[in-house]
Amino acid sequence: MNKKMILYTLGKMLKMEGYLLLLPFLTGVIYQESVSIYFLIVAISVWLLGTFISYHKPKIHTIYAREGFLIVALSWFCLSLFGAFPLWTSQEIPSYIDAFFEIVSGFTTTGSSILNDIEALSHASLFWRSFSHWIGGMGILVFVVAFLPDASGTTLHILKAEMPGPVVGKLVSKVKMTSQLLYKIYTALTLLEVIFLMAGGMSFFDSLLNSFATAGTGGFAIKNSSIAFYNNAYFDMVMTVFMILFGINFNLIYFILIKKISTVFKSEELRWYLGIIVCATMLITLNIMHMYPSLLEAFRYAVFQVASVITTTGFITADFALWPFFSQIILFLLMFVGAMAGSTGGGIKVSRIVIYIKNAFSEMKRMVHPHSVVSIKFEDQHVEPSVINNIHTYLVSYFMVFCSSLLILALQNIDFTSAITAVTTYINNVGPGLGIVGPTGNFSNINVVFTKFMEKIKQFFMN
Amino acid sequence: MNKKMILYTLGKMLKMEGYLLLLPFLTGVIYQESVSIYFLIVAISVWLLGTFISYHKPKIHTIYAREGFLIVALSWFCLSLFGAFPLWTSQEIPSYIDAFFEIVSGFTTTGSSILNDIEALSHASLFWRSFSHWIGGMGILVFVVAFLPDASGTTLHILKAEMPGPVVGKLVSKVKMTSQLLYKIYTALTLLEVIFLMAGGMSFFDSLLNSFATAGTGGFAIKNSSIAFYNNAYFDMVMTVFMILFGINFNLIYFILIKKISTVFKSEELRWYLGIIVCATMLITLNIMHMYPSLLEAFRYAVFQVASVITTTGFITADFALWPFFSQIILFLLMFVGAMAGSTGGGIKVSRIVIYIKNAFSEMKRMVHPHSVVSIKFEDQHVEPSVINNIHTYLVSYFMVFCSSLLILALQNIDFTSAITAVTTYINNVGPGLGIVGPTGNFSNINVVFTKFMEKIKQFFMN
Repeated sequence: MNKKMILYTLGKMLKMEGYLLLLPFLTGVIYQESVSIYFLIVAISVWLLGTFISYHKPKIHTIYAREGFLIVALSWFCLSLFGAFPLWTSQEIPSYIDAFFEIVSGFTTTGSSILNDIEALSHASLFWRSFSHWIGGMGILVFVVAFLPDASGTTLHILKAEMPGPVVGKLVSKVKMTSQLLYKIYTALTLLEVIFLMAGGMSFFDSLLNSFATAGTGGFAIKNSSIAFYNNAYFDMVMTVFMILFGINFNLIYFILIKKISTVFKSEELRWYLGIIVCATMLITLNIMHMYPSLLEAFRYAVFQVASVITTTGFITADFALWPFFSQIILFLLMFVGAMAGSTGGGIKVSRIVIYIKNAFSEMKRMVHPHSVVSIKFEDQHVEPSVINNIHTYLVSYFMVFCSSLLILALQNIDFTSAITAVTTYINNVGPGLGIVGPTGNFSNINVVFTKFMEKIKQFFMN
Repeated sequence: MNKKMILYTLGKMLKMEGYLLLLPFLTGVIYQESVSIYFLIVAISVWLLGTFISYHKPKIHTIYAREGFLIVALSWFCLSLFGAFPLWTSQEIPSYIDAFFEIVSGFTTTGSSILNDIEALSHASLFWRSFSHWIGGMGILVFVVAFLPDASGTTLHILKAEMPGPVVGKLVSKVKMTSQLLYKIYTALTLLEVIFLMAGGMSFFDSLLNSFATAGTGGFAIKNSSIAFYNNAYFDMVMTVFMILFGINFNLIYFILIKKISTVFKSEELRWYLGIIVCATMLITLNIMHMYPSLLEAFRYAVFQVASVITTTGFITADFALWPFFSQIILFLLMFVGAMAGSTGGGIKVSRIVIYIKNAFSEMKRMVHPHSVVSIKFEDQHVEPSVINNIHTYLVSYFMVFCSSLLILALQNIDFTSAITAVTTYINNVGPGLGIVGPTGNFSNINVVFTKFMEKIKQFFMN
């Protein structure tokens, strides 16, 4: 175990957090908010701590998978640990444990909030919350690899532990270049969304923060009633489109940029992803039609909520707890599906689900015709048994985390619906659930100590 | 596809059902109930139909896996189709669709009832309901193989499609002998329970019917308040022990009978099974302690409910919907666990769960130490990759059925808790869920057409 290298990398990461904290500080300065000073103090402290830890670069750079996993786990933890400080010391969130929950929910792009009155926060704090989504969206380590000046090939193993999809590495052969390219696409799309929102009349501040949350598929709203606050069909449509875009594998977006559109439409996962969105939207639209003045109106709310939930963003324009039960269950199941592999979205991922189901059907075929040779294809390639075993292991770990989380949450003696959907929304990084954690409720009702613990378990297993 | 052989086997099965229907008829005669005549009429009609269909034995006996699956699916369906007739024609259950639900719930050993007043039924109908658990418990086809005079080795493939566990075949080399031996153990244990219950003062009729339901891990109660009706600690303990016994692999029970006790305790699955029961009982006892006058009382109710749920029997002595949420969630999770492979219980089965988890941990180890050779052991034997793939396929099919059932049930617009637990209780053959399908509720609230449909899907995938 190369402990020095782990510590060194953590130090570099904290230095980076120091720089990042200057952005909310500047926001505060612009809006002349006194709380911004806390951001500056924490920024400097974290920067100093990071510099101290990473002062001597270890001679042995080698990092193996073990170190990689540990670095990922510790990084998320440390960034959140210090990231909560400005929110707490400024008394914007009076309890440290609440501040910690909020920022963990930010970095992990979950988007569940413990705040009862979001609008009471300063601009600096609002910026920091939403910005944490943007940082966390691509994975903290892709971020570091992309921007640390001395990130070398040895960081490959760290990346392996966190890369949003298995195919990202193929994009460009060099890891650093890949990470930077990913970030360029990510930044460009985010800015594009800002422009589109501003074109509709949204303020720059709101556009930027909502775009951060869309890009990271996080879903922190800056208004108490989430996106429903704006009540604007144009904003809804822009955000729907961008939520769906950020749920697409970034490789494919790269192909769009280099104008290899035909390659994009060959993607089997994309066809499934869009297919699921279309079907779910259609079913829900028909199901909620009677609740809205027109079919178009029903469609507007249906497609927004479907895009928000499948990409695990968690923005809300309609209180889906009031929708018919059938629509609720579709949304509930979409939380598990998640977006495409290689996107910023959470959940099990469309490709895993498709391979699971294909494999199950081929096994059933083998049971009926025992002598036939059945092999499954995905994206026009044969799927190796090791890949199938790997994603099955993912599924089992997933349900192990699900069940243990449920048991721990059960100790809080809340109701069944809230518990099940709270765990579902955590594990898939969505945001709102049903019951007391529903679209109009929030997570301040649920003991945060538990949540903190669960987020950590999740990070260990899910990354 | 050997259609003639499928039809022939179905005919034989119907003839057998004709004989079996004589038992409720005789019960009715003893209790001088006029409804018993309907049982006689249906018995004769079914026997005639069966005789007609199986009059000519086909020349080609060969049955492959495909035919096997089809026979299993059709048998359950036909036996239920005709088994519902006496309940309906006698107007004991006025709607045919309700009668069909009730008897499907019986044969599949689910134990969910649509009846609001069970005690209003005649003795003949009560006998037939509970007896259907006993017939279904071991699997309809093991029954036929054991008792049909001309069942030959070609029936192996039918058995393969339904055998309660993968290791049963090893018990005795001949299939017919195995089936008969299984039935001898099954019958002996059932009678033993009858004797124990009668020794405590329960009537012969009640003892017999409750033993049928325990043996098949079905859980149809003959009283409106289930086993809580008797409110007798001795009965509770006897039934707890027998529920746990019927959840044990019948191979192991065979070893107990031939006094190879040491072999029994070497069973890894048994240790896990008993370990889970002990842990769950301890946790629930501590959790509900404050609700009962003494620790012993709390233990009595905890262990009964744990045994009832893990073996998927579904008997009730306490309204667990009133228990703290933590206990409810433990019971909810136990519904999925199920009993041991090779028992009459439902659920995913302990051995599958243990192999899932072991495999997941070994894969995680492989991720951290990529060059190590990791293989997993169960019952002191290496688990082949094909076995792992097979049980993973089971898990995926399981969740596919779960999700589609949930979606269909969602169309009924009931509440979230009821829907989730109703599907859980169906798919695992437990009986009661939570919410409107909870211990004190029943399934008459839920549209039976849906249920019928779901039971059928389940049979296709689960057998």
